[in-house]
Amino acid sequence: MVNLKNNKTYNFCAGPAVFPEEILKKAQEDLIDYANTGTSILSISHRSEEFINLADRAKKNLRDLLNIPENYEILFLHGGASWQAAMVPANFLSDNSLANYVNTGHWSSKAIKEAEHFGKIKVIGSGLDAAMNLSGWVIDKKAAYCHCTPNETIDGVEFDDFENLPESDVPMIADMSSTILSRELDLTKFDLIYAGAQKNMGPSGLSVVILNAELLERANKNLSTMMSYQVHVDADSIYNTPATFSWYLMGEFLEWVKKQGGLAEMGRRSLEKALMFYDYLDHSDFYKNNIPRAVRSRMNLPFVLKDNKLDKLFLTEASKQGLINLQNHRSTGGMRASFYNAMPKEGVEALINFMKNFEKQYA
Amino acid sequence: MVNLKNNKTYNFCAGPAVFPEEILKKAQEDLIDYANTGTSILSISHRSEEFINLADRAKKNLRDLLNIPENYEILFLHGGASWQAAMVPANFLSDNSLANYVNTGHWSSKAIKEAEHFGKIKVIGSGLDAAMNLSGWVIDKKAAYCHCTPNETIDGVEFDDFENLPESDVPMIADMSSTILSRELDLTKFDLIYAGAQKNMGPSGLSVVILNAELLERANKNLSTMMSYQVHVDADSIYNTPATFSWYLMGEFLEWVKKQGGLAEMGRRSLEKALMFYDYLDHSDFYKNNIPRAVRSRMNLPFVLKDNKLDKLFLTEASKQGLINLQNHRSTGGMRASFYNAMPKEGVEALINFMKNFEKQYA
Repeated sequence: MVNLKNNKTYNFCAGPAVFPEEILKKAQEDLIDYANTGTSILSISHRSEEFINLADRAKKNLRDLLNIPENYEILFLHGGASWQAAMVPANFLSDNSLANYVNTGHWSSKAIKEAEHFGKIKVIGSGLDAAMNLSGWVIDKKAAYCHCTPNETIDGVEFDDFENLPESDVPMIADMSSTILSRELDLTKFDLIYAGAQKNMGPSGLSVVILNAELLERANKNLSTMMSYQVHVDADSIYNTPATFSWYLMGEFLEWVKKQGGLAEMGRRSLEKALMFYDYLDHSDFYKNNIPRAVRSRMNLPFVLKDNKLDKLFLTEASKQGLINLQNHRSTGGMRASFYNAMPKEGVEALINFMKNFEKQYA
Repeated sequence: MVNLKNNKTYNFCAGPAVFPEEILKKAQEDLIDYANTGTSILSISHRSEEFINLADRAKKNLRDLLNIPENYEILFLHGGASWQAAMVPANFLSDNSLANYVNTGHWSSKAIKEAEHFGKIKVIGSGLDAAMNLSGWVIDKKAAYCHCTPNETIDGVEFDDFENLPESDVPMIADMSSTILSRELDLTKFDLIYAGAQKNMGPSGLSVVILNAELLERANKNLSTMMSYQVHVDADSIYNTPATFSWYLMGEFLEWVKKQGGLAEMGRRSLEKALMFYDYLDHSDFYKNNIPRAVRSRMNLPFVLKDNKLDKLFLTEASKQGLINLQNHRSTGGMRASFYNAMPKEGVEALINFMKNFEKQYA
């Protein structure tokens, strides 16, 4: 990728996403000498006082930020959300039970396919209809759990009106990879949420799981150790050597979110950035986003050009201006801008400015 | 940990292990701007040209260094060796088959317990006897595979005379976490080896799997995607978002090993460091290592003090001199010095000097 620009680079990658600069600068120092240990943050023992301290601090900050009730466990595990899409059915589905899934896009579909390896699945809602009408989900009374994906990163569909979830005794489970920490969340609506860290709170290769202790009691016994939530809870997420550096980076990210004003402020910013961008798209005849306003994603904003023969030129010119990673997932084509927590408002403004100029030139 | 010393710190952690300084310095720069992309190495897309290039280079360097035959696949996966201890039986063991395991210490035992979740296990050799007499292993003709752990990090037991492995058509599988890249290896003696990266070649949270394509054909079908070697082979290790930064660091480490002279040079160094240290122990009445010479580990060198009431003082004084992480695993007690690839000879010399002085003062 050639950079001909003099200006700042804004990276709209859907994950691994951007980091706040101050975290990168601190990490530069800690790579050489962490907390006066004389050794790199990469090489401190996961059993050392220094690591246990940073791990505890990360957990406490996450609990504070999300207002996680005391009866919910917090896990930091290897891998990303795809591992969790397997661990959830491995722990809570069995040959004799049934799970409900809501299918609102690419990642919902993948979670469903994964779960089918473990037991019987019933899809209780699909597409935009399901995303727009949470109260319409009819959950089977005997379902082991109901699974949903509140943000679909590729489709650009998102719902967060969780107060409209149907009343039910069935545990509610959500893949919150893109939503987590981007706004306030009433966690009591869920019994388990999981998230890959590489969007709103850290690097790739780490996932967060927050689960209700009551749900944990229902977990299948005699699971392979690495698949068992109970094993990881008992070991405080250090059953085996954890991804120590990733954990450290997430800890720094959580501190940053707190300093910025917590989830109320993240929510204000994510809404402001998204509205600004959709407003521009909606007033343009050159770019288009087809998702109904009520379920447009704040985090991943897909759009197409009027003439898709201009796609390649658009991406090349954007890249020259330091606006990178604007192509959507290979499965769908078109463009996508991801505005995760560390994307400043200035990045969105720079993107809109570029798009205006491009439109002027090629409309 | 308070550092009262003016001298360099040497970190003898058994993993996450130390990195060569030049890699840390390069990583400092790449954290801000990787390869002129204008964005951090943490935030480049795993689908970008830059990442695909670094991933391919890492794979090629590993293939060159270990002289990996073309019919062996190379995978870089989430998690550490503990995940692999589950993936191996998940892929190759079934209700109707039997696997052979050799139990030479702590990690062998854990691998056996993990495998018991998936099928029937027969332990065909145990303890020092098994480590000292590879040709004595009697492998069941119908075993799905035979699994061994050539280096036991906690016990300090290691064997590498793989030319003495019994002739057999049964696939040989090894946890090479500590051994890999520390010396030359005839990979054709094995059908699958796996290793956590955090010892001789990278950070924690990443593992390497090298497997014979013929063995892969025998893998169980209809596995959960994240558990399936075939899925990861088909996706070239990018089925889901990989641990991109960890992969980058491992790539840098592989380049470093190559520049140092490859595995012949790593083997010379690891032998030199270990012999120097054991020679000192064997000439001391104050420190002791009880492992028979033939199976002493080059990588993890456990020792005890004559009087274990001095343990705490020993660790405190060592730490003041910048010699850190010398306590052995919490399961066993005593001391342990790990000499992985990035531990310079000077570190071993500094440790011996300190131990001499400590002995003089407290003998």
